[in-house]
Amino acid sequence: MPVFKMTLAYDGGAYCGWQVQSQQRTVQETIETALAEIVGAPVRVIASGRTDAGVHALGQVIGFDTDSHLSCDVLRRAVQSRLPSDVAVLDVVSATDTFHPIRDAITKRYRYVLSDAAIHDVFSRRYCWQYPSPLSVAAMARAGAMLVGKHDFSSFQSTGAPRESTVRTISRLTVERRGNQERGEIWIEIEADGFLYNMVRAIVGTLTEVGRGGQGEAWCGEVLVACNRGRAGPTAPPQGLFLVDVDYGTTLKSDAFPMEP
Amino acid sequence: MPVFKMTLAYDGGAYCGWQVQSQQRTVQETIETALAEIVGAPVRVIASGRTDAGVHALGQVIGFDTDSHLSCDVLRRAVQSRLPSDVAVLDVVSATDTFHPIRDAITKRYRYVLSDAAIHDVFSRRYCWQYPSPLSVAAMARAGAMLVGKHDFSSFQSTGAPRESTVRTISRLTVERRGNQERGEIWIEIEADGFLYNMVRAIVGTLTEVGRGGQGEAWCGEVLVACNRGRAGPTAPPQGLFLVDVDYGTTLKSDAFPMEP
Repeated sequence: MPVFKMTLAYDGGAYCGWQVQSQQRTVQETIETALAEIVGAPVRVIASGRTDAGVHALGQVIGFDTDSHLSCDVLRRAVQSRLPSDVAVLDVVSATDTFHPIRDAITKRYRYVLSDAAIHDVFSRRYCWQYPSPLSVAAMARAGAMLVGKHDFSSFQSTGAPRESTVRTISRLTVERRGNQERGEIWIEIEADGFLYNMVRAIVGTLTEVGRGGQGEAWCGEVLVACNRGRAGPTAPPQGLFLVDVDYGTTLKSDAFPMEP
Repeated sequence: MPVFKMTLAYDGGAYCGWQVQSQQRTVQETIETALAEIVGAPVRVIASGRTDAGVHALGQVIGFDTDSHLSCDVLRRAVQSRLPSDVAVLDVVSATDTFHPIRDAITKRYRYVLSDAAIHDVFSRRYCWQYPSPLSVAAMARAGAMLVGKHDFSSFQSTGAPRESTVRTISRLTVERRGNQERGEIWIEIEADGFLYNMVRAIVGTLTEVGRGGQGEAWCGEVLVACNRGRAGPTAPPQGLFLVDVDYGTTLKSDAFPMEP
């Protein structure tokens, strides 16, 4: 059956996360319902990873197979026309038979948006954590640098589904004033080969403790080696978190299926 | 009694406009409730102008008197602490006894935000009109230029409260790609000495007819001179409209009451 790779953006504010749960509005259920209407049969989609309740996506990637012979572009428009205004289909491409959105992901990148503006901004409140005191971006960046590399991140994992390993590799972690700087926006971006449950939000909650001066920069390294969730900072709220993109390398992108062979 | 001039920002999405109406959530009622709690007596506020249901403000100006002897800064913090997250107090200054937010306004400026991106942006949908086809900004700017000056704008007035005169002076009208250009944002800004009911939204609805190619540029001038609402374009939806600021000249600003006389 033809396999499709679809890229989605969504505002997670009105969803109980990605994954289908009975009696809850989820992004997965919303997409699967739209696809089933179009192809006339149930469709099961797999995402690169689950996003939690209230977490957004700028570039979530999903895969599914269907015996529909619609073109990618027709499929994109047909799905979009059946989706609510808080979900957008950014792209649809054909994928290889073996494409698997979780297994084939090389890295994923998340962005966490904070604002430390003295007067809160009413228009970004759904898309950032409005922090109640000024933050030192330089201190947060230096503390965050201690997390880059291959480490056991169990200090930054909320209790949840057990995982085989709590070792992950963070390839990049940046803390910068970006976006709407008039509104005091700070972006924390983390790229890794995988993320534990609530890992980004636990890291952000830990870095803000340093940023506000409640802890020194070295404390972040101590938290990491403690391998104890109780040592880290609080879990940052969901509305500041965005799944930015998922890297599958070049071979699985649309250029694997050139329009003009 | 001390008179205060307060500047507010609000996300109008959850309000039935500015003005108090029974059984409806309005911005005025929200502010008056907060002020009454602080000063222990009813407070009636007057705004520079009413904003309609769903319309936002980046800098609405209100005035009120109260016999409270709180400082401006304490008042700002006390009011903010009692407001919901979709209203922010940007500034509080003392004003002269004669200050009147409507009568003393020299000009007001509104911004209307559109997006003509082919794929709609899920994060700006509450704060712009996602237009279904590409728009020519150059054609809209040329058509809009015909409206600058002192004119009878009755073609751009929705039926509503009767007014003594439908003549207003637009001192500036710009149409530009601004803001988040990746998301196809277009800003239409209009500065005038006053606005008729739904005037900005009727002008925007008319300019988009030109921008999409449904009408020529000269049509905008024909609509103006017709003085007939039936000739203009549709009324643009409220969520793209922002009251940006109100100009009272320099004498009524905080420098009229220097901190160090």
